[in-house]
Amino acid sequence: MVVLGIDPGTANTGYGVVARHGGRLVALDGGSIKTAPGLDAGERLATIHARVGELLDEHGPDALAVEDLYFGANARSAFAVGQARGVVILAAGQRGLPCSSYTPQQVKAAVCGSGRAGKGQVQRMVQRLLALTDLPAPDHAADALAVAICHANGASLRAAVERSIGEAMLVTSCEARGRP
Amino acid sequence: MVVLGIDPGTANTGYGVVARHGGRLVALDGGSIKTAPGLDAGERLATIHARVGELLDEHGPDALAVEDLYFGANARSAFAVGQARGVVILAAGQRGLPCSSYTPQQVKAAVCGSGRAGKGQVQRMVQRLLALTDLPAPDHAADALAVAICHANGASLRAAVERSIGEAMLVTSCEARGRP
Repeated sequence: MVVLGIDPGTANTGYGVVARHGGRLVALDGGSIKTAPGLDAGERLATIHARVGELLDEHGPDALAVEDLYFGANARSAFAVGQARGVVILAAGQRGLPCSSYTPQQVKAAVCGSGRAGKGQVQRMVQRLLALTDLPAPDHAADALAVAICHANGASLRAAVERSIGEAMLVTSCEARGRP
Repeated sequence: MVVLGIDPGTANTGYGVVARHGGRLVALDGGSIKTAPGLDAGERLATIHARVGELLDEHGPDALAVEDLYFGANARSAFAVGQARGVVILAAGQRGLPCSSYTPQQVKAAVCGSGRAGKGQVQRMVQRLLALTDLPAPDHAADALAVAICHANGASLRAAVERSIGEAMLVTSCEARGRP
C-alpha cells in the first residue's frame, strides 16, 4: 500500500510518499512545493496542482491523506489554506482517488502517541518509523510524511478489524449451519 | 469588456457573465453549479473546476472576479469556501487570466450604495443595472452577477482615472514645451 501525504499551504505545500511492505513502512519521496509570493494566486495554485498531479502519476498511490484544519485557526488563514487544499484534493478527484483528512492532533497522536507533541518530536518519530538516516526536513515534508504514516497505519488497522469481523461472521455463519 | 463573476461554495457555486457595451452593462450568462452532498470532496471540486473552465473557454472573459471572505465567517466555513474558491482561481490561473477579489461588503456598496444592503435589495439592483425582465435567481447567481458588475464598474472607473491622469500628464508635458 502506497500513501501520498500532503500538508497544504499556498507558500509551502509539504508532500511525503510512504509505502507499507509487510509490517514495515518506507519513505519513497518527500519534499516541499514552494511558490513565490510575487506570483498571482492563480499561478501559485496552478504550480501546486501540477506538482501534486505529477506525484500522483509518478507514484500511483492507493490513497491521498491531507492535513485538516488545525484547532484555533483563524478564518483568514483557514481561507488561504483551504484554497491550496482545494487544488490538492482536486488533483486526486480528477484521477478518481479517494482522499482522507486528519487533523494535526490526530496525526501527532498516531505518530507520537500524543496530540500535543511538538514539531521536533514529530520529526524524530517520523525518522524512527521510516528508518531515515537524517531528520526529515523541511518541516512541511516531515508533517506530510507524518500524515501518510497516520493513514497507512490507520488503514492497515482498519483492514485488520474488517478481516477479524469477516472471520467472526464466517465462524457465526458456520456455527449456525452446525459446521465446526 | 467581459467579466466572469463567481460566488464560490462546495454545494453551490454561483456564476454570472457581464459585458460592458459603452455605458451599458448586459448579462450574457448566469446560474449555479450544484454538487451532490453524497459525492467525494474531490469529485465535487472536479465538477466546479470543469464547469468554470467551460465558462472561461465559452465566454473568453477579460477578467475573473471572485467573492472574498465575508466578515464574521468562522474558520470551518472559511476552510470549506476556500477549497471551492481555490479550484475556481486555479481554472483562471491555468488560462493566464488575472483574478480580482471583492468582499461581500464591497460588492453591496458597489451595486446598492451600501455595504449593509440585504439580499433582496442586491437582487433588485442587479435586475435594474442589467435591465433583466425578472429578478435574477438563484441567490448565488445574483451574487455572482453583482461581483461581475462590481468589477466591471470599478475597472471602467480605473480606466477613466488612468486616461485622465494620462491626459493631465500630456497637458503638463505640452505646457513644459510651451505648446497649447
